Amino acid sequence: MTFSKADFETLERFYKINLINSSSGFKSANLIGTSSKTGQQNVAVFSSVTHIGSNPPLLGFFCRPTTVIRHTYNNIKETGIYTINHIHKSIIEDAHHTSAAYNENTSEFDMTGLKSEVKENCIAPFVKDAPVQLEMKYVTEYPIKENGTILVIGEIQHIHVNKDIIEKDGLINLSKADVATIIGLDTYALPKIEKRLDYQRPKSINIEH
Amino acid sequence: MTFSKADFETLERFYKINLINSSSGFKSANLIGTSSKTGQQNVAVFSSVTHIGSNPPLLGFFCRPTTVIRHTYNNIKETGIYTINHIHKSIIEDAHHTSAAYNENTSEFDMTGLKSEVKENCIAPFVKDAPVQLEMKYVTEYPIKENGTILVIGEIQHIHVNKDIIEKDGLINLSKADVATIIGLDTYALPKIEKRLDYQRPKSINIEH
Repeated sequence: MTFSKADFETLERFYKINLINSSSGFKSANLIGTSSKTGQQNVAVFSSVTHIGSNPPLLGFFCRPTTVIRHTYNNIKETGIYTINHIHKSIIEDAHHTSAAYNENTSEFDMTGLKSEVKENCIAPFVKDAPVQLEMKYVTEYPIKENGTILVIGEIQHIHVNKDIIEKDGLINLSKADVATIIGLDTYALPKIEKRLDYQRPKSINIEH
Repeated sequence: MTFSKADFETLERFYKINLINSSSGFKSANLIGTSSKTGQQNVAVFSSVTHIGSNPPLLGFFCRPTTVIRHTYNNIKETGIYTINHIHKSIIEDAHHTSAAYNENTSEFDMTGLKSEVKENCIAPFVKDAPVQLEMKYVTEYPIKENGTILVIGEIQHIHVNKDIIEKDGLINLSKADVATIIGLDTYALPKIEKRLDYQRPKSINIEH
């Protein structure tokens, strides 16, 4: 079945949004925790956190500051600090509910079963019991002028991870902790590892003598 | 278990790369297909394709043009066209092998079991039998000066999708087609849908009268 760019305009609005949002593949499922300078906490679901590089350890995410996400963005700009927490099986509903449009004086921690966890020297709250919790420092942003979103880039300051899910060579086995992934806007899936492969080198093109 | 930024520098090199690469959550698993102006085809695995917006339908990915990825990047700059194809269960090994450093005159289609598929009016090759195939037009790029990578942004021109995996409301059910997701550099997992949730509205804060 083929949809062309011209077809997109004729599709029912939600059909179009679902189709395009789910077309890029599985997405990461994270809760970003922030605090205002005055201590008002915020936590919100994001599905665009992406690894940009390991040296320095940089992650990016896209946000549109005109939407409900603006509290996250404003707090990051105010304090320079945020946390990225992995959504896992037992908190999927609560995590998804953070997408509701609460006003800036309401903490999603008060409106869901999610528990805020404070760690030393970090103003931004973590999500308690998340199997991976990252403390991030804002580095820079790139405004994407084509659609008004912003790519926010941060550097990992601390990785807090359940030690049972770290393999001997450093890989975090996300499946072991029932970490989720997202399709489109609203569909949560749990991946099972199928295979781990070696570093690949070119095959020799002519192996006959 | 906690790793601080200072600890990263003391970790064994591959331990560090595995840890940081797997810390951001599950990643998309795609093959990007390109062709040079003269028709030399290329296909390479990427795990950073991210949805940026639906209107216009924009996807981004990060690449580092100094590595093996440069053939993909150079072809995109030459022709303005590329394809994004979802990695699914039966092509995981072949897809991963495209990360090997072949020279620009060797097509990964010739060195793996992946089959190239040509569609009308598209110079870039698709990966045959991929359950989702996107035809992309280069829009712009943002050089990430913090680490020398480039965010390449393209607009979806066509979505070719197996019609058995489109739900009534447009969601592409990636699990039904055994589409893969990636942890870190080398670990492929297959997600099963756990739940699909509704659009969320704020709960009323005080429901007692």
